[in-house]
Amino acid sequence: MQDNIVDTLATRIHQMDAPIVVGIDPILEYIPLSLKEHFYKKYGHTTKAVSEIFFEFSKNIIDSVFDIVPCIKPQIAMFEMFGSNGIDAYTKTIRYAKQKGMIIISDIKRGDIASTAKSYSIGHLGNIQIENNIEPVFNSDFITVNPYLGYDSIEPFLEECTKFNKGLFVLVKTSNPNSGDIQDIITERKQPLYIEIAKMVNNWGADYIGNKGFSRIGAVVGATYTDIAKEIRKIMPHTFFLVPGYGSQGANSNELIPFFNKNKTGAIINNSRGIIYSYLNNKKIDEENYAKSARNATLKMIKEIQEF
Amino acid sequence: MQDNIVDTLATRIHQMDAPIVVGIDPILEYIPLSLKEHFYKKYGHTTKAVSEIFFEFSKNIIDSVFDIVPCIKPQIAMFEMFGSNGIDAYTKTIRYAKQKGMIIISDIKRGDIASTAKSYSIGHLGNIQIENNIEPVFNSDFITVNPYLGYDSIEPFLEECTKFNKGLFVLVKTSNPNSGDIQDIITERKQPLYIEIAKMVNNWGADYIGNKGFSRIGAVVGATYTDIAKEIRKIMPHTFFLVPGYGSQGANSNELIPFFNKNKTGAIINNSRGIIYSYLNNKKIDEENYAKSARNATLKMIKEIQEF
Repeated sequence: MQDNIVDTLATRIHQMDAPIVVGIDPILEYIPLSLKEHFYKKYGHTTKAVSEIFFEFSKNIIDSVFDIVPCIKPQIAMFEMFGSNGIDAYTKTIRYAKQKGMIIISDIKRGDIASTAKSYSIGHLGNIQIENNIEPVFNSDFITVNPYLGYDSIEPFLEECTKFNKGLFVLVKTSNPNSGDIQDIITERKQPLYIEIAKMVNNWGADYIGNKGFSRIGAVVGATYTDIAKEIRKIMPHTFFLVPGYGSQGANSNELIPFFNKNKTGAIINNSRGIIYSYLNNKKIDEENYAKSARNATLKMIKEIQEF
Repeated sequence: MQDNIVDTLATRIHQMDAPIVVGIDPILEYIPLSLKEHFYKKYGHTTKAVSEIFFEFSKNIIDSVFDIVPCIKPQIAMFEMFGSNGIDAYTKTIRYAKQKGMIIISDIKRGDIASTAKSYSIGHLGNIQIENNIEPVFNSDFITVNPYLGYDSIEPFLEECTKFNKGLFVLVKTSNPNSGDIQDIITERKQPLYIEIAKMVNNWGADYIGNKGFSRIGAVVGATYTDIAKEIRKIMPHTFFLVPGYGSQGANSNELIPFFNKNKTGAIINNSRGIIYSYLNNKKIDEENYAKSARNATLKMIKEIQEF
């Protein structure tokens, strides 16, 4: 059996000793003024200018981290809010990061009935077909998906996962403060809902386990809920965790231990704003050096995680 | 107090005697060949051609129904799968339907942590700001959202809802066969999860009730689950229901009664493929008459719903 995408992810993490994914969340007000001015001069205050700004910013972040971390996680919402021009920058960012050899975890959190899920699957993971023309559109390696609609909303993605060697991260316990509103509801089996979802996702992924023992169907488990991670880790030994919420959302490195297996595999920690906007938190750093600052913040995070 | 968007929706439904929303799900293989050939000749087998095909098809559907139903429901997935060119057609479709005086319920089913939800809210309901340039992007009237992440994933939309007179439909019980996997899980209070979600969404919407007694925060309740609709209707008397699953997903018109209040208000029934691709089910209809066929299918559905 050839290595699947989760095997590749685990291998790259091991080679780089960096279970880290850098989140690409382009936010206009946090991007250096000089970079923005350049494109405003060319295109005015338009979504076309924003598209160019976002791609240039993302490209420079990618250039600054591609040799030290295996993955980026573009957040589609920040691009989508600027319409088709925003989506254009999103597409180019993914393509560029792939050229640099990076693995792409696209944070899209889609979830819909089967026929609609199929469209998302084809667009984000597979190939569209326009008569005799067959080509990928977004071509992410992984996408995040929402399980609320049940198995038939997840199943349509599995065809593209197998055919194009892709993977999913299903939301199990999210990092936000109110994630418990629904996810922590106690069921008649006297356990929180997230436990039932964890078991469900674990079953969904059972047929998709690769050479290194992890399924193509991973889980999103928020860094902000350490105790819950302990419970979920036990239920899902073959599930790779995508762990958001480190850094700006509040979790620190020691709290990450329970997300990993005993041999410190099986999880990848996301940091978005804490890395890509680190230049804003250090007055000594000139805004032109935002990408260098992002690299330093990434190296610091790698060290923190290596040390525990 | 001025009428809010849900009041307007209720008024238009009453005026037209048509609690119906036509779903715009452009699917390349179901669109008439002659329409496709026209744009393939111009642009080749490209996503640009698909964009033009989708917009032309959607425009003709809108032209054929705008005077008999108050709303369309574009499904963003079908556009998104063709990348930025697809999103361009999506944007134009919404704009065109608004020019025709229609209300737009965008089926996007987004759901994310607060800062990300804010981006979706600004892009889909509000105005982006690029320095001194402030403008809408998608400008939908309503969007569908997924509640799995809890209240802080919904709250960011409420600012745009109030400021720009918009509304939400939160997924409560979806129409698909496996929706029960999670939504029907029995909680420690001995009730299915969808009941707890229904109560939650009802509370979330309590401060946003308009002149006609309905909240800006509506609910998605699938036409395929009549008995469940009865339960949920009781819990959510002030909540407008968006009801998918009629027609091609299998529900029939008598089964729709429980979704409405006693005075037959408070719900809007969606039909997508059963209307826009009705020409495929009737060999007597030439493909050039697909829009006329869509109108006839809509008129038939209006009659079915008027009769019960």
